[in-house]
Amino acid sequence: MSASRDSSTVLRNDYPWTTTPLIASAPMARVSKPPLAVAVSKAGGLGFIAAGYTSHNLEDLLEEAAKLLSKASDALAIGESGTLPVGVGFITWSASLEAALPALRKYQPCAVWLFAPPTGIRDLIPWAKQIREVTSHATKIWVQIGSVADAILATELLQPSVLVVQGSDAGGHALAQGASLISLVPEVHDKIREIQAQQQHVKHPIQLLAAGGISDGRGLAASVQLGAQGCVLGTRFLASPEALIADGYQKEVLRASDGGCSTVRTTIYDKVRDIHGWPACYDGRGLINQTYIDSVNGLSEEDNQDLYSDELEKGSEGYGPTGRITTYAGTGVGLIKEVLPARDIVLSVRREANRLLGQTPQSSKL
Amino acid sequence: MSASRDSSTVLRNDYPWTTTPLIASAPMARVSKPPLAVAVSKAGGLGFIAAGYTSHNLEDLLEEAAKLLSKASDALAIGESGTLPVGVGFITWSASLEAALPALRKYQPCAVWLFAPPTGIRDLIPWAKQIREVTSHATKIWVQIGSVADAILATELLQPSVLVVQGSDAGGHALAQGASLISLVPEVHDKIREIQAQQQHVKHPIQLLAAGGISDGRGLAASVQLGAQGCVLGTRFLASPEALIADGYQKEVLRASDGGCSTVRTTIYDKVRDIHGWPACYDGRGLINQTYIDSVNGLSEEDNQDLYSDELEKGSEGYGPTGRITTYAGTGVGLIKEVLPARDIVLSVRREANRLLGQTPQSSKL
Repeated sequence: MSASRDSSTVLRNDYPWTTTPLIASAPMARVSKPPLAVAVSKAGGLGFIAAGYTSHNLEDLLEEAAKLLSKASDALAIGESGTLPVGVGFITWSASLEAALPALRKYQPCAVWLFAPPTGIRDLIPWAKQIREVTSHATKIWVQIGSVADAILATELLQPSVLVVQGSDAGGHALAQGASLISLVPEVHDKIREIQAQQQHVKHPIQLLAAGGISDGRGLAASVQLGAQGCVLGTRFLASPEALIADGYQKEVLRASDGGCSTVRTTIYDKVRDIHGWPACYDGRGLINQTYIDSVNGLSEEDNQDLYSDELEKGSEGYGPTGRITTYAGTGVGLIKEVLPARDIVLSVRREANRLLGQTPQSSKL
Repeated sequence: MSASRDSSTVLRNDYPWTTTPLIASAPMARVSKPPLAVAVSKAGGLGFIAAGYTSHNLEDLLEEAAKLLSKASDALAIGESGTLPVGVGFITWSASLEAALPALRKYQPCAVWLFAPPTGIRDLIPWAKQIREVTSHATKIWVQIGSVADAILATELLQPSVLVVQGSDAGGHALAQGASLISLVPEVHDKIREIQAQQQHVKHPIQLLAAGGISDGRGLAASVQLGAQGCVLGTRFLASPEALIADGYQKEVLRASDGGCSTVRTTIYDKVRDIHGWPACYDGRGLINQTYIDSVNGLSEEDNQDLYSDELEKGSEGYGPTGRITTYAGTGVGLIKEVLPARDIVLSVRREANRLLGQTPQSSKL
């Protein structure tokens, strides 16, 4: 069907346990731990562990993943390249490359996902270079972008295997100003193919995964039509037992509807948690709660932060429209009605997408 | 394929000259005049004339459309219902229903598209009721919404034939806060079907058209996967000879790239043109120019307006990143590279979408 779909064999070569179209789980800071990532990969997707803001316990995380992956009952074969069939995501303005390299060398995760460099895409050059060096190119480089300009820079400077194309509907952090997938994916697609057509020695076309606002097979099928080879689900996996998430948070994900109205992009949800340092072009999308409303109504950041600290003591009661605890979610939150095992999410989303696309999934494994 | 696609015969019953998936041209104020609307309908789409902010010359507009439609060389057969095969769009907080009724009675356009009621969807009840009365239900009611909440209200209060589901990528006016099509269309789809399943006496399922950020067949195919029966193109038709648009404006549409970064949602582009009265929940997306930059940097609205008035004297030179004249465009602007006749736009977008969807178009006419 679409030309972009023809290149899907690239992904199955690099990640041979996966099934098309590829479903990856987002490396959500504090939430995406080995149990979620492993469950996603075992279902023929690609699970990402969040190294998040630091890299200090990466070795422990990867050891845990390796153990889960080798469990006798449903062990996942390691790819020909000998990589660990899960990826690791880094918030690169904050995480330490140096601290991450030993664990990456030892465990060789199949991919690293690089997000939010402090001053621009160029900051990722040492990340791509050194990770490739210590893993003998076994670990593939994924770069998350939210604009055509960054997609071009990443292609030219980093030759990533995958561009994660993040639209404005995404939950959590993303560019404060940007397009959604409906125009961003095709514009990135065309520009990247144009650049790669001019480059010598391009072995593989860069693969595009669509991220932001997708909760089900319709969103995945739409992403494929727009030119992507698969998609990333973040918010959808918040409603899985494998996500490390407070009960109150998960309840809100199930409760919320009308995702474009019940969520908002803002920086206040970082500020009240005393998280500083995100590059100025980023903010985060979360469910609207009292923290945001008070901020709009002029409450000082200091007072808002004090109220936040008090609210944390309430535990799960601190979530919700009249609560204060940060509840990052994308606009696809309104489509999420039940907690499902991560495996079931992957299988059902892929099944629905393939039905819509009129295809049987391509896989040698599942 | 998708259940939603099965209902596409509803559109072909109501608008028998059209071909699936339906492509409508947006009633862009000041731009969408009879030549554009008629060209779109003659290509098997559904063209909308903008009554815009007022309804005072609607009879002239519809007379012009009727003449163009009856031109012997490529006359478009009038539907069984005897309607005029073009629609009319109203900005309902500003336009006069009373002033519009005589022309609607006389010409019976196939549809009216109601947008932006002053205080809420309930304001549209007299519009729907009286237009149905004066046209003996021949003129169908389309309602544009940008949230699930408004989709529910419109369904319950107005029983529209079509909901135009407008995502945040749209050019020109839209909800200041909302989701894009990737999550808005499926969430609206599910909610509307749920409501209609509970209603007695529903003759036809409400049809959904996706609007906002779509410039080519990929966007239309994606919209169908998300649950829509077709799409609306606005910005794409700015690059057609039939659009009533300044040369400088059209050049900017061709020049701009990276649509999520080169455009922005703001209210300043109305203010400098002395347009007041848009309900507070709306703003408009346009290409970033000096008007916006000065506004962000603190220039007073009064001074900005004065500079705008001066700029208008420059004509087409007043457009562009260092210009000041308002240049509304959606994020799909980066996909538009050439001026094409409206007919060619309709045919090529539909052809590409049907290729991606693996379908041959369903039509009795084309």
